[in-house]
Amino acid sequence: MVQMEYLKVMKVLNQVPSLADIEAAHRRIQPWIHYTPVLKCKSINELSGCSIFFKCENFQKVGAFKMRGASNAILSLEEEQLSKGIATHSSGNHAQAVALAAKNVGAKAYIVMPKNAPKVKVAAVKGYEAEVIFCEANIAARETTLNKVVEDTGATFIHPFDNYRVIAGQATAALELLEEIERLDVLMAPVGGGGLISGTALTTHYLSPHTKIIAGEPKGADDAYRSVKAGKIIPSVNPQTIADGLLTSLSDKTFSIIREHVSEIITVSDEEIIEAMRLIWERMKILIEPSSAVPLAALIQQKNRFVDQRIGIILTGGNIDLDKLPF
Amino acid sequence: MVQMEYLKVMKVLNQVPSLADIEAAHRRIQPWIHYTPVLKCKSINELSGCSIFFKCENFQKVGAFKMRGASNAILSLEEEQLSKGIATHSSGNHAQAVALAAKNVGAKAYIVMPKNAPKVKVAAVKGYEAEVIFCEANIAARETTLNKVVEDTGATFIHPFDNYRVIAGQATAALELLEEIERLDVLMAPVGGGGLISGTALTTHYLSPHTKIIAGEPKGADDAYRSVKAGKIIPSVNPQTIADGLLTSLSDKTFSIIREHVSEIITVSDEEIIEAMRLIWERMKILIEPSSAVPLAALIQQKNRFVDQRIGIILTGGNIDLDKLPF
Repeated sequence: MVQMEYLKVMKVLNQVPSLADIEAAHRRIQPWIHYTPVLKCKSINELSGCSIFFKCENFQKVGAFKMRGASNAILSLEEEQLSKGIATHSSGNHAQAVALAAKNVGAKAYIVMPKNAPKVKVAAVKGYEAEVIFCEANIAARETTLNKVVEDTGATFIHPFDNYRVIAGQATAALELLEEIERLDVLMAPVGGGGLISGTALTTHYLSPHTKIIAGEPKGADDAYRSVKAGKIIPSVNPQTIADGLLTSLSDKTFSIIREHVSEIITVSDEEIIEAMRLIWERMKILIEPSSAVPLAALIQQKNRFVDQRIGIILTGGNIDLDKLPF
Repeated sequence: MVQMEYLKVMKVLNQVPSLADIEAAHRRIQPWIHYTPVLKCKSINELSGCSIFFKCENFQKVGAFKMRGASNAILSLEEEQLSKGIATHSSGNHAQAVALAAKNVGAKAYIVMPKNAPKVKVAAVKGYEAEVIFCEANIAARETTLNKVVEDTGATFIHPFDNYRVIAGQATAALELLEEIERLDVLMAPVGGGGLISGTALTTHYLSPHTKIIAGEPKGADDAYRSVKAGKIIPSVNPQTIADGLLTSLSDKTFSIIREHVSEIITVSDEEIIEAMRLIWERMKILIEPSSAVPLAALIQQKNRFVDQRIGIILTGGNIDLDKLPF
């Protein structure tokens, strides 16, 4: 009976993930992901005046939480779909996540990447045996190229965030955090396309409804902040920020969850992001990418509001080019 | 009866630490240190062809294993000694460790530092409420200044490594590692003054005698390598290496333990150190200082010898100036 229920959950997910969907996602991906540690840092707590619990997705497979969503989406496909392969476009962590998650189930991955993508990222994707298809460095070219790949191969497209299975997968980071740490007053994550923050908000809504969800967003890519204010999606146009994981605009699915379940979006400057990143590197001795530092930057900017509170922060990833550090 | 034995161990330690001394040290310091995690890294294992278990002392209090030895030495002192304070000379991790360990027991710390010591290190020591006494930047000036401080105040000098209580404290890192990970073929640590490697060698000799102890040393500061070859201590003269924690010469106490219990010293170039450090940063997403990378550099240099073996490596610390990175 339980098994049948589980299969049913696996097959259909065309609505906002329920708690059962998120729990099923967690069971499904568990053999393929790391259960990442939650770290505390005394000196950052002293400096910020609150108790922070960092969920370290920088230690996740492929170095980012994206492995959760990609794994859930791919593990939910039928044999026949898998046999035709998986496709996506991304120059970032989603590309690596799809490549590895596909390899894990023996499926072929087609990754469309802009031709100016950093060589190290292309090499990482190829290292997972994915086929890389290069295109011009703009969204239109990415989409055209992807559509052609899908047409030619019959591969299934896994969108980086406008996909409920991906959202349910990203939601499992908060599931683990809330299992481990009780009574959080606030849970923070960055917002880019919104997959992580909407998954986080859903899990928290189900399991810890008194916990406020606050997103951090770079001022130079504040489309989510402006979208929520305007009550409609305002696309990100020419975003400029060091947080290169947060350049994307929201999608219908993520915008709708964010409107309902995210209390607030705090925007931060690149200087604040770099300062928070450096603080985490120096005090915690862990590597995080700039996008990961956005929530702590937001917390520090408004630290008087959070005094003595218990704050969860999802550190999203640790993939950063050591040849191009901001310090 | 056990309690009496324990007190006896606390008072006298004028010979090479026994297993009981090391275990007593571990009980004594346990409330004041972190039980640091042991991490593995799949991609570094694949690349090196063996199974490596990294004991992460970069996550230790003050960011380095030195907190173990300093804590053990200071916690072993009598009330009357503590009331007169603790003194040492160091511009590195030992300075911070003594400052914090003294603060923990309410004792005053006097730290002699060269006047060209990095401001961030001086600030860290002062942050632990120690009194900093500046001197000229040479060993003679350090020792003269230290002697004067000791004469004036009656403070107890805690040598960074020529001290059996310090060695017993450093030995507890291997104690934790061997408790957690069984059947190591090799255990590696860097050698500078020799406190860590000799403590590590003692613990391993007592608990896992079939495990080989191998030290890594920078080619530009290879006095330990040359000393063992010559059968007598050859001081480090004008050492040049990026591994700034490993500049010191051996002492009588450490040299004697190393001769008896360390199988081999492998020397590595600064290029090899930087490459190994970068590998750990990029693949493990943790910050280590250059000295910490020396054993992995040695392992990679001679990786054919270690194929399929189980290797422990002590990552000594994570204190690095982000403004002066080698990449």
